[in-house]
Amino acid sequence: MNKIITISREFGSGGRELGRRLAEELSIAYYDQEIVTELIERTGFAKEYVKQAEERIPLPLLPITTAHTFGIGSNIAIEQQLSIYNHESDIIKEMAEKSDCVIVGRCADYVLRDMDPFRIFVYADIDSKMKRCRERGDDAKDMSEKELKQKISSVDKKRSRYYQFYTDNNWGDRINYDLCINTSSKDIKVLAKKLADFIS
Amino acid sequence: MNKIITISREFGSGGRELGRRLAEELSIAYYDQEIVTELIERTGFAKEYVKQAEERIPLPLLPITTAHTFGIGSNIAIEQQLSIYNHESDIIKEMAEKSDCVIVGRCADYVLRDMDPFRIFVYADIDSKMKRCRERGDDAKDMSEKELKQKISSVDKKRSRYYQFYTDNNWGDRINYDLCINTSSKDIKVLAKKLADFIS
Repeated sequence: MNKIITISREFGSGGRELGRRLAEELSIAYYDQEIVTELIERTGFAKEYVKQAEERIPLPLLPITTAHTFGIGSNIAIEQQLSIYNHESDIIKEMAEKSDCVIVGRCADYVLRDMDPFRIFVYADIDSKMKRCRERGDDAKDMSEKELKQKISSVDKKRSRYYQFYTDNNWGDRINYDLCINTSSKDIKVLAKKLADFIS
Repeated sequence: MNKIITISREFGSGGRELGRRLAEELSIAYYDQEIVTELIERTGFAKEYVKQAEERIPLPLLPITTAHTFGIGSNIAIEQQLSIYNHESDIIKEMAEKSDCVIVGRCADYVLRDMDPFRIFVYADIDSKMKRCRERGDDAKDMSEKELKQKISSVDKKRSRYYQFYTDNNWGDRINYDLCINTSSKDIKVLAKKLADFIS
């Protein structure tokens, strides 16, 4: 069976960079935006629409199993959002069957649970996350301390809800992962090298 | 500054064994029962009394800072329990100042917070913990499934309360640790070797 590594991460923790560098260190495939690109090719959905769907859940606070039980899901928008999740899950499975790889986000730890992935959760303290966001640039550089804190909290809340909805498990709950890594004040490059040795 | 590694662990997770093997791999000192032995020598307290004090908190649900604020603590039993914690903390600090070491339990991650320890939390799923308890022998072998589950839960609740009382932080909350390791279905020997490479 292929060596599959899944990365879940808090916003600003450097988890995406850690995943990319880890894949480089191990010389294996890395999948993140590639999943979206493949999805767009297959379905014709607009990129922005997919991005939005990846952050939202079709029915607030109802896990997918409940939604199915009550037959909720006839609305076209809901169907499309579920369809995006299902397509992404299929793509993730195909990618994992092809070769060893690192997959970031998208409930991959749950989607690939039958393939015994090594599941990593990446986190950091709020100061480190804010610092990383500022260094990374994009829209963080124009935000006040308060705004940036709120943004970090809001993204993580969305990730948590999304994960809970599709997996019925708690995002960030250690029992769902093999290793939880605190990146506060850590050099991601060094961490990726150490992690590659740990996993291989 | 010395390399200090602290281990907090769920009951039955193999955290103590992991700590001991990690110290062996790194050829550094290992402190666990040694802290109790040193405490007994210094204070003359009976071993059983110390063991009990390590599992109990003097005042249920009040963090130590609150207890101090309200001047609670005139009762001799309470004073002695606080005294045991304080003596243990002094011993832990002395040990950490002496040389590189691994220290198991006793809020060492908090006690040594000014020495920048590498803080590990060890956990596992309930089935793995029950299996480890049975293999380890002692009183687990005569317990029913239900009794053993209750025992595991009860020990962890005590550890959680103890940690919360003395540190005002949540035991097992990932933000208090640098690495959280799931030992479910893992070989502790192999894990210790990998961990030694990761840390050094």
